[in-house]
Order: sequence, then C-alpha cells, then structure tokens
Amino acid sequence: MKDRGHILRLRNNPQANKILNESKYVINSSKDKYFVNNNPLHLEIGMGKGDFIIGMAKKYPHINFIGVEKFATVLVYALKKIETEQLTNVLLLNEDALNLENYFKPQTIATIYLNFSDPWPKSRHYKRRLTYRDYLKIYQKILVKDGFLKQKTDNKLLFESSILSFNDYGTNFEMISVDLHQSKEAKDNVMSEYEKKFSRLGQPIYAITISFKKGSK
Amino acid sequence: MKDRGHILRLRNNPQANKILNESKYVINSSKDKYFVNNNPLHLEIGMGKGDFIIGMAKKYPHINFIGVEKFATVLVYALKKIETEQLTNVLLLNEDALNLENYFKPQTIATIYLNFSDPWPKSRHYKRRLTYRDYLKIYQKILVKDGFLKQKTDNKLLFESSILSFNDYGTNFEMISVDLHQSKEAKDNVMSEYEKKFSRLGQPIYAITISFKKGSK
Repeated sequence: MKDRGHILRLRNNPQANKILNESKYVINSSKDKYFVNNNPLHLEIGMGKGDFIIGMAKKYPHINFIGVEKFATVLVYALKKIETEQLTNVLLLNEDALNLENYFKPQTIATIYLNFSDPWPKSRHYKRRLTYRDYLKIYQKILVKDGFLKQKTDNKLLFESSILSFNDYGTNFEMISVDLHQSKEAKDNVMSEYEKKFSRLGQPIYAITISFKKGSK
Repeated sequence: MKDRGHILRLRNNPQANKILNESKYVINSSKDKYFVNNNPLHLEIGMGKGDFIIGMAKKYPHINFIGVEKFATVLVYALKKIETEQLTNVLLLNEDALNLENYFKPQTIATIYLNFSDPWPKSRHYKRRLTYRDYLKIYQKILVKDGFLKQKTDNKLLFESSILSFNDYGTNFEMISVDLHQSKEAKDNVMSEYEKKFSRLGQPIYAITISFKKGSK
C-alpha cells in the first residue's frame, strides 16, 4: 500500500506560514467574493504541489480555481509555480476540508476535484478519507445544484471505498472509469504530479464523477 | 475489445436440444419446486461451460444451484461435467434471462451470479447487457428481499456500465473490487473458465455485489 510519504518527506519549511500570509495568491480570510469576475468557481481539495490546478487554470481561463491544501509547506511549492506563471484565475487556501463552509456559501461551487487523495488505508481511519459521508455533506452544501464532484486516484482501496460511500449517500454517478487514460475521457484529462508518475509505472488511473441531484438519504 | 468468440466458435451441436431434453439435470418445464429439499436456491445466468457453478455446487452442498444458459450447445458441455460428477444440487435451464419469471416465483432466489457476461461493447447494444435496467427488474422480483446479485467480469466497459446501471436503479452496493484476486474476497472465490484464463494473462478481475434493499426509482 502506497502512503503519502512524499508529502511527509518534504522538509518542513518554518517560513511557510509567513510566505503564505504575505502572498496575494493566498486566501487569508473569508470573503463574499474571491475573484474580480463572476466566472464559475472550481475547488481542488488536497491540491498538493499544484500541477493539476495550474494546468486546469491555464487550459480554462474563464473558470476560477481555488486550491485547498492543509499542509503549508506543500502549498508553498504550488505558490512558487503560480507566481512564476502570473495566473489571475487561481487562488490558494491553507485549510482543512472540514472548514470549507467557513469560506464558501451554499451553492457557490460548480465543481470539486479530489485528485489522488490520501487513501487512509487502515480500516479504522476510514472516516478521514475525503469521500467519507461527513465530507460529502459539506460538498453537497457548497456545490451548486447541478455541480459535480470529480475524483481520480490510483489507489484501489480508496476508489472502492469512495464508490460505496457515494452509492450509500444516494448520489448520481455521472461517469466512471477503471482505466481513465485508456478511456474516451483521456483527451481532456489534465494530470497531477502523482498521476504522471503512476501512469508512467503502467498503473491504471481510476476516476468517478458524481452529482448530488438525487439528494441524500 | 474481446468478444465472446469462444462461444460462437463452438461447433453447433445438432443433437444438443435432444440431449438436454432427455437429461434429468435439465429443467424442461416450470415447477413449484426443482429440488427435493428446501435449501437456498442460487442462479447463475450465462453459466457457459459450467466451471463456476460446478465448483460452487461442490463447495456448498447445502445450496441448490441452477445454471441458466441460452446456448444449447454450450449447455451440453456443462451437462457432461455434471453427469460425471453426479452432483445432486445442480440443475440446468436452457433459457433466456428475460424469461426467468416463467420459472421462478417472486422472492425465491437467494443469490444471482453474473460471471463474465457478454459485454455487448457497442453503445447501441447496451440494452442487451445483463445489468441493464430491464434485467434488474426481473432479478429484483425473483430475489428474496435480502438477496444478492454478484457480478464478476474482466471487461472494463461492462463493469463501468453495470456500476452506473446499479446506482441509477437505486440498489445498495455491498462490495466492490477492481482487483478481486488481490482482495480479501479472493480466498473464497470460485473461478469460471474465463476467469482462470484472463487471470493467467495478468488482467484484473472486477467484481461487485449489490442488493435491492433500497428498492428502485
């Protein structure tokens, strides 16, 4: 079972919080509006070093992206890339997903992305997985009515447990793939750091898109 | 995309119907009861040459199994094996799954197995897949209230389309695996002919178990 060792192996950056606090790309307090325009807002939760969200922001300039990441040291890596690219449609938020409602009003997010989230492989930790029921409740609240939650992972256990959780919660399944890179969705796919690495190793990438149209149990 | 060429490649046996009609192991008409005891009844739909159902029947002598197969020539292969084994808890039925209600009263089947069913890969044929809504309605009727539908396949497209169909129908997902042979369910797994072959080729076997406890939309 892979762990998220690459995150933990990043040397802690004692300056991280200071760097984040001083950057115009980082959200430091809750606001009604984070961007000057009213373009649709997409969130990536657990954005890591930012390859996916930066790739998306460049590909879709008329969508605003906010990358959420609870590890400050990791976020600094992404911040450096965003500053270099001078992107105007990306912001970063150093927060735990459990606190999203403090930053986003109900029905304000068009799409949420979960890419290669920590699988928390031990059974006793299943409530920490980002597709556990308590997180779905939060996503459902902040997503617009016809919004999407899009998950990608290389981790079998996380994928299986997410499917069970999505089904149990009563969501609609919009798309599912057990081999994303060989599927018809592959051409529009923007890859994360992990995804590039795992895909090179020949591992299948699993993907699922759901919506909350049905509501929940 | 694999097709079911191996079935079509079987030379048609002009004696098949005659052989089936004369065998005590073959159900030739609808009855209230097919076995002398009242043990739970499990169905395999599309049983092919019978390795799975024969393996199950030997492993679980206190369960009665009925193998359903619409191709008479294929069924003769399975019949020969069953006759050799002299099994008393297996019967065969040469029928289309759409006609199951002619043979089984509501809520009389404990488990239905779909193993390596024809994937009908062309989009326009999706209604022919054994996990299409019209089939689920039939399964729901003949299954007991807490009964299970268990699917295994090596086919990505069939697995994906089945998951979407199961969720859309409003079923409960009891178990899902994107690599059955590496999962904790592997130790109790009885393999079909296909499964042995595809597994040797290193292909993952996909599996899902659902129930109809929630009812349908």
